Amino acid sequence: MRAITYTTTGPSSVLGLIDDKPLPTPGPGEVRVRVVVSGVNPTDWKSRQGGSGGEQLPHPLVPNQDGAGVVDAVGPDVSGVVPGDRVWLWDAAWQRTDGTAQEYLVLPSAQAVPLPEAESFDTGASLGIPALTAHRALTAHEDAPDRLAPGALSGLVVLVAGGAGAVGHAAIQLARWAGATVITTVSGDRKGTMARAAGAEHVVNYRTDDVAAAVRALSPRGVDLVVEVNPDANLALDLDVLAPSGTVALYATDTGEPLTIPFRPSMTKNIRYQFILTYTVTAAQTV
Amino acid sequence: MRAITYTTTGPSSVLGLIDDKPLPTPGPGEVRVRVVVSGVNPTDWKSRQGGSGGEQLPHPLVPNQDGAGVVDAVGPDVSGVVPGDRVWLWDAAWQRTDGTAQEYLVLPSAQAVPLPEAESFDTGASLGIPALTAHRALTAHEDAPDRLAPGALSGLVVLVAGGAGAVGHAAIQLARWAGATVITTVSGDRKGTMARAAGAEHVVNYRTDDVAAAVRALSPRGVDLVVEVNPDANLALDLDVLAPSGTVALYATDTGEPLTIPFRPSMTKNIRYQFILTYTVTAAQTV
Ligand SMILES: NC(=O)c1ccc[n+]([C@@H]2O[C@H](COP(=O)([O-])OP(=O)(O)OC[C@H]3O[C@@H](n4cnc5c(N)ncnc54)[C@H](OP(=O)(O)O)[C@@H]3O)[C@@H](O)[C@H]2O)c1
Ligand SMILES: NC(=O)c1ccc[n+]([C@@H]2O[C@H](COP(=O)([O-])OP(=O)(O)OC[C@H]3O[C@@H](n4cnc5c(N)ncnc54)[C@H](OP(=O)(O)O)[C@@H]3O)[C@@H](O)[C@H]2O)c1
Repeated sequence: MRAITYTTTGPSSVLGLIDDKPLPTPGPGEVRVRVVVSGVNPTDWKSRQGGSGGEQLPHPLVPNQDGAGVVDAVGPDVSGVVPGDRVWLWDAAWQRTDGTAQEYLVLPSAQAVPLPEAESFDTGASLGIPALTAHRALTAHEDAPDRLAPGALSGLVVLVAGGAGAVGHAAIQLARWAGATVITTVSGDRKGTMARAAGAEHVVNYRTDDVAAAVRALSPRGVDLVVEVNPDANLALDLDVLAPSGTVALYATDTGEPLTIPFRPSMTKNIRYQFILTYTVTAAQTV
Repeated sequence: MRAITYTTTGPSSVLGLIDDKPLPTPGPGEVRVRVVVSGVNPTDWKSRQGGSGGEQLPHPLVPNQDGAGVVDAVGPDVSGVVPGDRVWLWDAAWQRTDGTAQEYLVLPSAQAVPLPEAESFDTGASLGIPALTAHRALTAHEDAPDRLAPGALSGLVVLVAGGAGAVGHAAIQLARWAGATVITTVSGDRKGTMARAAGAEHVVNYRTDDVAAAVRALSPRGVDLVVEVNPDANLALDLDVLAPSGTVALYATDTGEPLTIPFRPSMTKNIRYQFILTYTVTAAQTV
């Protein structure tokens, strides 16, 4: 079968197409999926790029955590899924050599989740990293349950930084579905349209508008939860607009620099800062 | 009646004893308590000291949030408490002019909690700030319920920084009562004895011992929750010894300086940093 692989880290030119990868056989608890769409997230190209690039890998790697396709074979001790089922995949390449950028993929059956007929494979391949990260972020507030459901976030106001991004888009959709009021920030009109399509009721341009003033006008008591893509840029704003006992869910850093958190304002408002790495959370908890 | 008051902020010499304060009458929902013991916490002398000291106050203030005594009169619409009941008091001076450093005190009945016969007034006057802060800290972890009860923290390992301090002592007692394994740090033998008296099973001297090594030996998978009195000094240690999805509950700062939090290690471990100001929490939530 065909697969995309790389054996040294570096720019996208390290990726190569091979056509003689053996078809894998599912072991106990595993399924084989015919991949229809492979999803790409920042984590995929960051892993491929490596620290400084040019590192020789012990094994060839197939990139991409997310994907969607059709179950093609099941191993022993697998129940609830049969060949022909449409599925979406998550964390496929996490601590494994085989991601979704290949024709067939074997992985634990829990990582192949039923995809309803009405949903496209494109949608399925967009869920894994972005939606799991968004879910984790939205459950970080003390008034949120461990799992979202309609009504679970009723009464909460959520600020999604960067609502046109992949995680931001998923956060808007899930927060609205769970009953929250959603405010989001974007850098321009085209992204505003994308954020509105995801369901955001209130879209603020963070380049041209006074975001703090806009948020206060929309929610005078402040926001309960911020889903934050760029804390280096936005932490002071977040602290300013958070309501007492509010939470900042942090899943990304542009700089990798330590985060500087004002102490007394955080204490006075009883702020929670929840750092998130979706891999380690989803590995520890069943989705 | 007699009371301790101050009208300008500053050193303890600003406190004066007056003996002609009128006996207050409880209004609707209020009780009057004959104070037997008044408790002193850092917040009391910090408030008295003020920012730079020497500020003239709009009203004379009676210090001290905590205390214990006997209900002496009840106002209209008060149920569940009658004159003669022994009680402990919390947040008495929070956004009010009258703390517990006086013979009689009127306050909302919810802030006068029954004190069992077996418990001394000294104990009662030690509960408010320290025990509420400790309770809040211990419920910050994602696997802890909103209210503690025996067994609520079973399976969790809690590191209490400064186990001989007032909040630290209360945190040890409550964590043990709720079923956690407790490790604590102290600066010397006398404090170690105090921490053990509170119930700490494992006491580490943070001046002479390698705390990280000692904690790893006691709990190889790390600790779930740190109740942190001195994050400026200890945050790197906390991050080092925390287990994945662990929490740091932060209630104090020596310096008031912003806290510098390493981003990637916090993200990789899904760490939660919960800042706490007990006043605003207890005002928002019924205890
Ligand atoms: N911790 C985890 O488990 C985890 C999981 C998923 C993703 N991530 C990380 O999260 C980041 C985003 O991932 P993604 O897939 O969502 O990427 P993406 O689709 O490229 O979205 C990033 C978004 O961030 C927005 N943004 C940048 N600076 C902003 C600011 N100052 N204020 C508001 N928005 C801002 C951008 O909007 P504009 O272009 O309009 O500025 C863009 O829409 C990446 O660094 C990724 O590695 C981490
Ligand atoms: N946010 C809130 O709502 C809240 C509530 C209560 C208290 N507080 C604050 O919390 C602080 C402590 O209050 P408290 O009543 O518990 O005071 P305390 O009884 O004086 O206790 C302070 C303890 O901190 C310990 N300590 C200092 N540096 C340490 C370090 N590097 N490692 C481990 N332990 C260390 C001290 O132990 P050694 O002498 O052995 O070093 C001492 O036992 C005060 O600043 C207070 O204002 C805040």
